[in-house]
Amino acid sequence: MNQFLAKKRHPEDGYELWLRYAPITDSSTRAAYQQVLQQMVIHATSPTLQAAQEELALALENMLGEPVPFVESVTQANTLVIGTPHSSSEIAALDLQPLLAQVGEEGFVITRMAVQSQDCIVITANTDLGVLYGVFHFLQHLQMQRSLDDLHIISAPKIKLRMLNHWDNLDRTVERGYAGFSLWDWHNLPDYLDPRYKDYARANASIGINGVTVTNVNANALVLTPQYLRKVAALADVFRPYGIRVFLTARFSAPMEIGGLETADPLATEVAEWWAAKVSEIYDYIPDFGGFLVKANSEGQPGPHDYGRSHAEGANLLARPLVAHGGVVIWRAFVYDEDVPEDRAKQAYNDLVPQDGTFLENVLLQVKNGPIDFQPREPYHPLFGAMPKTPLMLEVQVTQEYLGLATNLVYLAPLFKETLDADTYCDGPGSTVARVVDGTLDDNALSGMAGVSNIGTDRNWCGHPFAAANWYALGRLAWDHQLSSESIAEEWLRMTFSNDDHFVEAATALMIESREAVVDYMTPLGLHHIMARDHHYGPGPWVDEGRPDWTSVYYHRADQEGIGFDRTASGSNAVSQYHSPYREQLADLDTCPEELLLWFHHVPWQHTMKSGRTLWDELCDRYNQGVESVRRMQQTWASLAAYVDEARFVHVQSLLRIQEQEACWWRDACLLYFQTFSQLPIPPQYEQPAQTLDYYINLRHYYVPGIRERRFG
Amino acid sequence: MNQFLAKKRHPEDGYELWLRYAPITDSSTRAAYQQVLQQMVIHATSPTLQAAQEELALALENMLGEPVPFVESVTQANTLVIGTPHSSSEIAALDLQPLLAQVGEEGFVITRMAVQSQDCIVITANTDLGVLYGVFHFLQHLQMQRSLDDLHIISAPKIKLRMLNHWDNLDRTVERGYAGFSLWDWHNLPDYLDPRYKDYARANASIGINGVTVTNVNANALVLTPQYLRKVAALADVFRPYGIRVFLTARFSAPMEIGGLETADPLATEVAEWWAAKVSEIYDYIPDFGGFLVKANSEGQPGPHDYGRSHAEGANLLARPLVAHGGVVIWRAFVYDEDVPEDRAKQAYNDLVPQDGTFLENVLLQVKNGPIDFQPREPYHPLFGAMPKTPLMLEVQVTQEYLGLATNLVYLAPLFKETLDADTYCDGPGSTVARVVDGTLDDNALSGMAGVSNIGTDRNWCGHPFAAANWYALGRLAWDHQLSSESIAEEWLRMTFSNDDHFVEAATALMIESREAVVDYMTPLGLHHIMARDHHYGPGPWVDEGRPDWTSVYYHRADQEGIGFDRTASGSNAVSQYHSPYREQLADLDTCPEELLLWFHHVPWQHTMKSGRTLWDELCDRYNQGVESVRRMQQTWASLAAYVDEARFVHVQSLLRIQEQEACWWRDACLLYFQTFSQLPIPPQYEQPAQTLDYYINLRHYYVPGIRERRFG
Repeated sequence: MNQFLAKKRHPEDGYELWLRYAPITDSSTRAAYQQVLQQMVIHATSPTLQAAQEELALALENMLGEPVPFVESVTQANTLVIGTPHSSSEIAALDLQPLLAQVGEEGFVITRMAVQSQDCIVITANTDLGVLYGVFHFLQHLQMQRSLDDLHIISAPKIKLRMLNHWDNLDRTVERGYAGFSLWDWHNLPDYLDPRYKDYARANASIGINGVTVTNVNANALVLTPQYLRKVAALADVFRPYGIRVFLTARFSAPMEIGGLETADPLATEVAEWWAAKVSEIYDYIPDFGGFLVKANSEGQPGPHDYGRSHAEGANLLARPLVAHGGVVIWRAFVYDEDVPEDRAKQAYNDLVPQDGTFLENVLLQVKNGPIDFQPREPYHPLFGAMPKTPLMLEVQVTQEYLGLATNLVYLAPLFKETLDADTYCDGPGSTVARVVDGTLDDNALSGMAGVSNIGTDRNWCGHPFAAANWYALGRLAWDHQLSSESIAEEWLRMTFSNDDHFVEAATALMIESREAVVDYMTPLGLHHIMARDHHYGPGPWVDEGRPDWTSVYYHRADQEGIGFDRTASGSNAVSQYHSPYREQLADLDTCPEELLLWFHHVPWQHTMKSGRTLWDELCDRYNQGVESVRRMQQTWASLAAYVDEARFVHVQSLLRIQEQEACWWRDACLLYFQTFSQLPIPPQYEQPAQTLDYYINLRHYYVPGIRERRFG
Repeated sequence: MNQFLAKKRHPEDGYELWLRYAPITDSSTRAAYQQVLQQMVIHATSPTLQAAQEELALALENMLGEPVPFVESVTQANTLVIGTPHSSSEIAALDLQPLLAQVGEEGFVITRMAVQSQDCIVITANTDLGVLYGVFHFLQHLQMQRSLDDLHIISAPKIKLRMLNHWDNLDRTVERGYAGFSLWDWHNLPDYLDPRYKDYARANASIGINGVTVTNVNANALVLTPQYLRKVAALADVFRPYGIRVFLTARFSAPMEIGGLETADPLATEVAEWWAAKVSEIYDYIPDFGGFLVKANSEGQPGPHDYGRSHAEGANLLARPLVAHGGVVIWRAFVYDEDVPEDRAKQAYNDLVPQDGTFLENVLLQVKNGPIDFQPREPYHPLFGAMPKTPLMLEVQVTQEYLGLATNLVYLAPLFKETLDADTYCDGPGSTVARVVDGTLDDNALSGMAGVSNIGTDRNWCGHPFAAANWYALGRLAWDHQLSSESIAEEWLRMTFSNDDHFVEAATALMIESREAVVDYMTPLGLHHIMARDHHYGPGPWVDEGRPDWTSVYYHRADQEGIGFDRTASGSNAVSQYHSPYREQLADLDTCPEELLLWFHHVPWQHTMKSGRTLWDELCDRYNQGVESVRRMQQTWASLAAYVDEARFVHVQSLLRIQEQEACWWRDACLLYFQTFSQLPIPPQYEQPAQTLDYYINLRHYYVPGIRERRFG
């Protein structure tokens, strides 16, 4: 009855994410768990171990229906023993060094073994944070209702910095945020700590995220003033027990804006002194401050070029004072100057490759997965494999700026994996982007992967009930980039919705299909950057005004002959930035993967594709395939009603209806527009456009979410 | 156990407002209720009656622990019978006409009587909406655990239009909103309906709110375009079963901005035709559209004065086409021109009184409680009692623009009551503002009371856990302005927190004290409008730049001799706008209520107050009393920890700490500033200022909540 009450009074709303710890209704599984989890031993000697204990208490009570008692020491079999050799003498007494030697600072060991000659389960690590990660992994194991027999898990993160970057503004708007507004209630910090801050930290720690940048890369220097630093420090205090370090975005012109200097020239002594003083001031507030994330000389942001200095000179300016504190500078490689290059895709490479080896050792270069800007599909960024002396951090966008905002169901793990698994051939076959990023290829001391956050104040955190899967996937892949998209989807689905195998199988297929679907109905065959201007919501292939490399026509180059951007030797020769043999494969119209064809080639409308269709007919087919995929997703979801609570089911159903409308909108607008060049009919077997091209061109959308900060005092 | 789970998994967060329907733990009360509530009969022949049935099912199951079955007809005693004589033949058979004749269209009767010669409880009304109101009142009765013996309640609203005005922008920012952002998710409307829309409607219906303006009075014409009207219509569909009509703010220049006309002159034929067409278009989308709320020729908004026309000519332009549809125009009396008057307090009166009798019969004039702008204390607005031929609607501000945003605990019922109970003497003693507003004094066909909403996306709706009490008080007073502040506080506390008598008594006292506290630490003795400019957060008595009547010095007029605005015959003579004998009472320094002294008089620093203190010492005493009151509130709250769940207890505790800091900030900043004129010491028995005046003057706050809409496409 109370169960019913709870249901009645608190419908599922997604707030608990993948930490629902739903009661285990299968009695045999519950009995098996209760059999081996009769007691727990943890000596919570630190806030991090206290967090682990608290999580275990909450989770096991909810899943098993009654508390599992904590005891002082192992007095019987079927005890869960948690700790490090340092925090637990019982664990110290075990011969775990060989295992612990494999897991480093953050990894963990979960193993079933004899403790005090009693059959127990041990969760251990070299550090308290490793133990917390082990506890979360163990609880994931239970939430997926996996067996505890012969339990033996050894896991360590492949990448050191596993980050979430918030593009949150101080007025609580979130640039390219579609899930409400910023979590950070600056006005009431530090005096009021929203309980949500802790739940946010729990969710991040449960997937291994260990760094968060709380402010927008289009930075506001005010956050570096004491008035705000005490607020940031309050957040850092909440995050610390969960192993999360806070980073801030540094506006390059801050010494002038809040420091009263005449210049921000990185080679000016007073500027270096100002940053040195600012850094030590920050560490007074936040002893474990992570460092700075910097967007400089990009899209109008100030930077070292304003003074004729290099990016390395700019990055080193901020990095130098951080060294002593163990802080780092994350310098974005998403840089391009005011003067429009012949091919924006080549610019970061041309600008930064010559600087390889000139950055201080505590600088990471943060490179987007592709050379343009988080499109539904891009080739991997050619900087990967081109700067062996510099740690390259992979930046992906979890928020769906170009992927349907928070209304489109798009599972991004396949997109992230596509980049990670790509072979750069920089050191021969097998030189994958993943190996560049995790540092193994070039033996970098630092390594990192970051995602642009899709989190906001929406009750379910990410807006779309499925969008949290992308947050989850970021953490899991940063921990282990060899996990498959399918296995990550399965983990998330079982913890978020249901452990029913039929549901999980169908929903996993839906998620996997969703990524290719959005490519097909937005930008098939290598098309890119053809969205509406400014807010980027909806199609805009006709956009041709303003800065050329911010238009659509610059990228699709459609004309009477054909469509696509010639990036071969006869064009911008961007292919030359890739290593052989991939370079040659891309350069040849016949060997270039069709999924990237129009990225690298200007192709005649009548060109025969592998399908035997002409390019035009193939384009029509792909756009229609995209729409059909969404309709399949709708049917699949409709068939799963029995497995999902009503509130989340209806929410997803409503958003899939919007997604289907938007898929048709993209298809019809793009085909009608490209048809003005191809002059060819849309084959009759396909749905014909519902409206005229003029109708789509004249559509106006106001106040699309993801707004920018307003500047006022 | 599940109970415990529910508790563990879903801590109280205020989302359920006063509709928590907490399980009745007192077994004798529960038994008594179960005894007389064994079955229910309701023929839910309309969406409104279905809503009533749904609410009863949810509430009784939660409160009593098990469902009360619905049956077809009365077959036994102890049945709850719900409906109108029209929807229920059993009720029609009862002799209820004499009672129903007293309750009008929206009132209700709840009475224990024989039905089919069985002892039953009947909830009935003349309309389905009346029944829904009766059901909510009955559930309030149960939540307060009042007896069902001899139950006999007859209730009808004293005011016809009971409204909530949202200052919500289309980009989801909320002007002067401090509880997150706008509830209206325009981007996903109409395709996705957030379940929160329905819960919002439930909360409003439960306190009798029957109209909501969903857009900001600083209006955006876009909301009148089809693109947005279909979104508004979707909201109206959700609200309709709960008896809530939707209103929109009409930007006077809309015919030019979205209509393509050259003018918005109210006397131009094409303008009249445009509005007529727009109105019928709106009714195609929203058949029960309530009408327009208009802010014109005020703070830069366009209006009829732009064309040399009167407010009446402007209001009638919009009102004329609405008549046929039963819509109204609510025209704000908060008007003042660009040219600064000698006393802004007099302007609305001077401008509008001459127009009494010239407005169409479906126009209401919406008058703020006081003549300036929602200050902690103002005298009642002199328009009340001065326009007998025009229905005057009372506008109060529920959002705490000048009362500490959402961080200060300020219970506003005493403020609302102060205005409602004020005697205008316009028709002799007893001509209260309440009787002007409810229409009984001048026999107006229309009547209304509106509050500016304090609702946002914050999980607890209003930001401060106590702020929902002000939303609640607005609805209750608009229904019955004779309710006492204490009884309203008690209702709200029992339903929101606890039925424990000790808790209710202590928390009621705290709430009642909170209003005088904020007057004392912000604007004692009739001071007003001395807050910081623009965002209005914190003290700013030194503000002296820009438009004079937007400065502080314009209002406090402090100088070497004394302080206060002379509004007697020797000054602006604003007192002449009030009726005798109140006018004379105000005009005389010795009879003017001290709580309004500096509003009407410029008083020497050495003037002897009733306390025997000099004015300066009294000012010091009042400011310190304010701070002391907040500290008492902190102590009271600390003593109530045992009665409140931890999450809400800590939240209130944290905000009270902020409030205490802000109270000291106000006290110290204002006293230090006024001291530069009085040249007198702050008596040693009081806390001396913590900082220098320069410190307070130079404090800067950025991105204070309550931001304005950005204009971009």
